[in-house]
Amino acid sequence: MANEWATFGADLHLDLAGQGLRHGLMDALREAVRSGRLAAGTRLPSSRSLAADLGVARNTVADAYAELVAEGWLTARQGSGTRVAPRSAPRRTERSRTAAPVASRRAAGTPTYNLLAGTPDLATFPRADWLKAARKALMAAPNEAFGYGDPRGRVELRTALAEYLARARGVHARPERIVVCSGFVDGLMLMGRVLRDCGVRKVAVESYGLDVHWNLLTREGLRIPALPFDERGTRTEELATTSGAGAVLMTPAHQFPMGGALHPDRRAAAVDWARATGGLILEDDYDGEFRYDRQPVGALQGLDPERVVYLGTASKSLAPGLRLAWMVLPEHLVEEVAAAKGGAEWASPATDQLTFAEFLGSGAYDRHVRAMRLRYRRRRDQLVAAVAAASPGTRVSGIAAGLHAVLELPEGTEAATVSSAAFQGLAVMGINRFRHPDTPVTKDALVVGYGTPTDSAWTGALEALCRVLP
Amino acid sequence: MANEWATFGADLHLDLAGQGLRHGLMDALREAVRSGRLAAGTRLPSSRSLAADLGVARNTVADAYAELVAEGWLTARQGSGTRVAPRSAPRRTERSRTAAPVASRRAAGTPTYNLLAGTPDLATFPRADWLKAARKALMAAPNEAFGYGDPRGRVELRTALAEYLARARGVHARPERIVVCSGFVDGLMLMGRVLRDCGVRKVAVESYGLDVHWNLLTREGLRIPALPFDERGTRTEELATTSGAGAVLMTPAHQFPMGGALHPDRRAAAVDWARATGGLILEDDYDGEFRYDRQPVGALQGLDPERVVYLGTASKSLAPGLRLAWMVLPEHLVEEVAAAKGGAEWASPATDQLTFAEFLGSGAYDRHVRAMRLRYRRRRDQLVAAVAAASPGTRVSGIAAGLHAVLELPEGTEAATVSSAAFQGLAVMGINRFRHPDTPVTKDALVVGYGTPTDSAWTGALEALCRVLP
Repeated sequence: MANEWATFGADLHLDLAGQGLRHGLMDALREAVRSGRLAAGTRLPSSRSLAADLGVARNTVADAYAELVAEGWLTARQGSGTRVAPRSAPRRTERSRTAAPVASRRAAGTPTYNLLAGTPDLATFPRADWLKAARKALMAAPNEAFGYGDPRGRVELRTALAEYLARARGVHARPERIVVCSGFVDGLMLMGRVLRDCGVRKVAVESYGLDVHWNLLTREGLRIPALPFDERGTRTEELATTSGAGAVLMTPAHQFPMGGALHPDRRAAAVDWARATGGLILEDDYDGEFRYDRQPVGALQGLDPERVVYLGTASKSLAPGLRLAWMVLPEHLVEEVAAAKGGAEWASPATDQLTFAEFLGSGAYDRHVRAMRLRYRRRRDQLVAAVAAASPGTRVSGIAAGLHAVLELPEGTEAATVSSAAFQGLAVMGINRFRHPDTPVTKDALVVGYGTPTDSAWTGALEALCRVLP
Repeated sequence: MANEWATFGADLHLDLAGQGLRHGLMDALREAVRSGRLAAGTRLPSSRSLAADLGVARNTVADAYAELVAEGWLTARQGSGTRVAPRSAPRRTERSRTAAPVASRRAAGTPTYNLLAGTPDLATFPRADWLKAARKALMAAPNEAFGYGDPRGRVELRTALAEYLARARGVHARPERIVVCSGFVDGLMLMGRVLRDCGVRKVAVESYGLDVHWNLLTREGLRIPALPFDERGTRTEELATTSGAGAVLMTPAHQFPMGGALHPDRRAAAVDWARATGGLILEDDYDGEFRYDRQPVGALQGLDPERVVYLGTASKSLAPGLRLAWMVLPEHLVEEVAAAKGGAEWASPATDQLTFAEFLGSGAYDRHVRAMRLRYRRRRDQLVAAVAAASPGTRVSGIAAGLHAVLELPEGTEAATVSSAAFQGLAVMGINRFRHPDTPVTKDALVVGYGTPTDSAWTGALEALCRVLP
């Protein structure tokens, strides 16, 4: 068996940098299942032995397996190991490999139900209003708007964002301190580079989060120690003892994926640490607009604009496909970040920047966010009610805000539940998928992205979810 | 003097990575002139001594000085050194620092006349046609188009590009081999990373080119030896003796900035080298659409699609502000590049990708390129005629294609001519601004971007240019 897998590994074109490896492995495994090279029911080698054969970290293989289980290609059952799923899997990658007509691509492209966290309901993208803003903005734009432009982004957008962020998120923002990015990831990558160039070697992160973000930091040569976590959120008072961290990446308004807001004492501790040490807080405010049961928690940045880099995005409030995000920088970082960005000429297209500026300035963004808040709140209420009815013992947390909730599971049942969901055609992830490598397993849970399905798929998704709960 | 400058240097927030340093230095110098800290006529320290004070490479300072001379902030005269210009300079950076009304920003933003190469006439961006395509594309798009999407880009755009590139540029293209990028620079950065991860240590480049591109490669840890250049173009037969180069970055259809097409023997030599050594050719086809006096030179990629990465862009044919470019990859690189891109989630917005796909598919792009070709050809003819009348001894070369021409100057007069042009309010660059550090000075010339001005500025720009010619 080991030999067969070594050969399989050798056939892969592997990008050995971070994420690429897992993706490459997943693609190769999907292809092997699709082509029939791996028949239904075939037991795969343990993640430990395949990792050894391929010469990669065990977690890389374990993560790839877990995601393919979530996608329905593989199954994982206690005592039975990881096997090729007994029926043809949802063909998530097929879509991107062919130029088939739209209808068939849509049918084949996704699992029947999708409760993966991180994407809003894409059917709600306000196409007509966006086009209206585009027309107004493009017809009024000066010619120079279509040139290479300021690496910080269009001044029209930075001006509109400064007004909006001050009003809606309590951010201390001035246009000249804002840098527009191609999505949050672009901003984080840029900050990773600037921090490293400033001599930072470690960026503390939270116990749970997105490995795609962590990988961007490690790719820049930064180490990413994890801070411990408890019921009041990330234990920022331990930053002082995290020796040598020059910055911390956090989701203070709505921890991803746990779903809570950082306790005020912890917010204060983070700022105290930053002031005392000259450290920097990278505040990932990915869905700060969506609050349901209480007043929005203002951005941490308001506490000390000189020690916090605020990062916001239109990916949850409008659509990830816009690739629009922004940073509000401390004064002393503006030149460095603009220079780093300018050197690479990264920028969002002027067309979208001007359109978004008009969309913000005209009030269309406020109207859209309000409508979406009502919609997601209704979904959240339906989720809580359905879970209470189907599985009264299941605790639902992280529900005051955002587009996802955490459903706690009996110890040791997470992987089986995720895999069982995949058999129902339901894509959903376990919370341990988001656990930092240094963090021990403390709970089993599902992270349910209730913002993701379209309205027509929502009821079915909820029913499928309830069927897999204990 | 040294102390004053050391202090000045110490005040700068310098990003010590590549481009950033020069930009930071330029910004600081502009600010010092603007604020009056450096009075008109003040003689600046030599580039050697300022470089020593700041602890940076002499070229960094010399380049910053040369650009500020081109922008009109400084003057440089033989025997008199570099001085602050005697009148207030064009405030190029003011535009981006304020949120002033559009009209005043436009007036203050640029020199009176701009013949810098690299930007098309921005007034010609087809706003109404673009908006029409946007409406059609966005209203027809499937919901999933607004999600995170395929790291290679939208299949609609890749399909439209494959058809266009095969037809217009002789590129052997299939949608699954195309990766959409946020501008050429994004694609080159990605290739630099992938090449380095594949074990490449050196990428050969041309004797003349853009340092912003070279810097992207060196930032990835790659060395960039230059190939020699003669009247038939880059001496690709010397690739075999450039020990250890795993790839070469070239502009075969229209060398930038020299303006010639690579001789067929040299094209063949490049491909022979790539086949014999397993090397890769990165073909920068930045303005291949614009040919005037003869049939377009097809892309080198057609000679061997497995050994050439073709890079194209909409920055010259439509507008840099769209940040749209594309790569056509050899089969064996598709997975690596998609994985590298996916890990960073870089992508052009779905909105622009879908719009450009519609723009291509509807024939609007072909119509626009045809109209622009006529327009630029007319400008080229006017340039040649005006130079012949004003300065009969001045040889104009590189005129068969593209958006710029090379005007040869008597030996040793380039810097003075650029600086004299700046005094006329004319921004134009000397060819030595584009010279690779390893290449000796072999000629003095101006690189004249005749595509850059709007129609209303064109005649004045041409007159200003003629006034500074010998």
